[in-house]
Amino acid sequence: MFELDPRLKQDTTPITELPLSRVVLMNDARFPWLILVPHIVGLTEMHDLPPAEVAQLTKEITTSSRTLLSLTNADKMNVGALGNVVAQLHVHIIARFATDAAWPAPVWGVGKATPYGNDARETLIENVRSELDLAFS
Amino acid sequence: MFELDPRLKQDTTPITELPLSRVVLMNDARFPWLILVPHIVGLTEMHDLPPAEVAQLTKEITTSSRTLLSLTNADKMNVGALGNVVAQLHVHIIARFATDAAWPAPVWGVGKATPYGNDARETLIENVRSELDLAFS
Repeated sequence: MFELDPRLKQDTTPITELPLSRVVLMNDARFPWLILVPHIVGLTEMHDLPPAEVAQLTKEITTSSRTLLSLTNADKMNVGALGNVVAQLHVHIIARFATDAAWPAPVWGVGKATPYGNDARETLIENVRSELDLAFS
Repeated sequence: MFELDPRLKQDTTPITELPLSRVVLMNDARFPWLILVPHIVGLTEMHDLPPAEVAQLTKEITTSSRTLLSLTNADKMNVGALGNVVAQLHVHIIARFATDAAWPAPVWGVGKATPYGNDARETLIENVRSELDLAFS
């Protein structure tokens, strides 16, 4: 049965389920940051997905990236699948700003996460969920 | 006309041309590291590609990732499109080892690039080129 890696579960808040992936929000108010986790037990590399699932994941990535950019007016989107610490395949989609706490460096490992205020988090989650659910309905 | 960004040009060595992307090798012997640059002038975000080109780029990414993993026996592949410094869309495909100079952190911005010995670089380039040219022939 698919379960989110415990470390990912601890660091994120659920947003929605897409056809292939669970979408969660990283609990770090410094960066609007989605993570997509395909519902496939034991998967660690995107290149191990069969072609139809690669196509679906790509659609989920590009739609999530476009959605987060449009909701945040970010300067640049960063998209990456690393997995050196958490092996379960998960794709980061991060809205970056020339004024953010890590720019122009990548966000991973930079400083400490800042908690969201509840309202700010709920608003972002609601907006992302509503756009993604519409896109994949 | 498509041209590689000057910074990418300076930091890499050409390997081959795929249907959508130029494939280059990062000049850093610490990490076997390919970069794919779609031949599309002015492109900065993967999500701005039309669906057919997204599918082609995804195929080029997954094939390159599988190829580099198999040639290097890496522990993990890292795949990412950041573009905070060089805006031209370019996709990093990096073979990571639990013993490498940055593990488990991402490679970007870590230490200084180490030059390849000529033979090591030529061998890697020849092997990647031959596998990719075969896969896309």
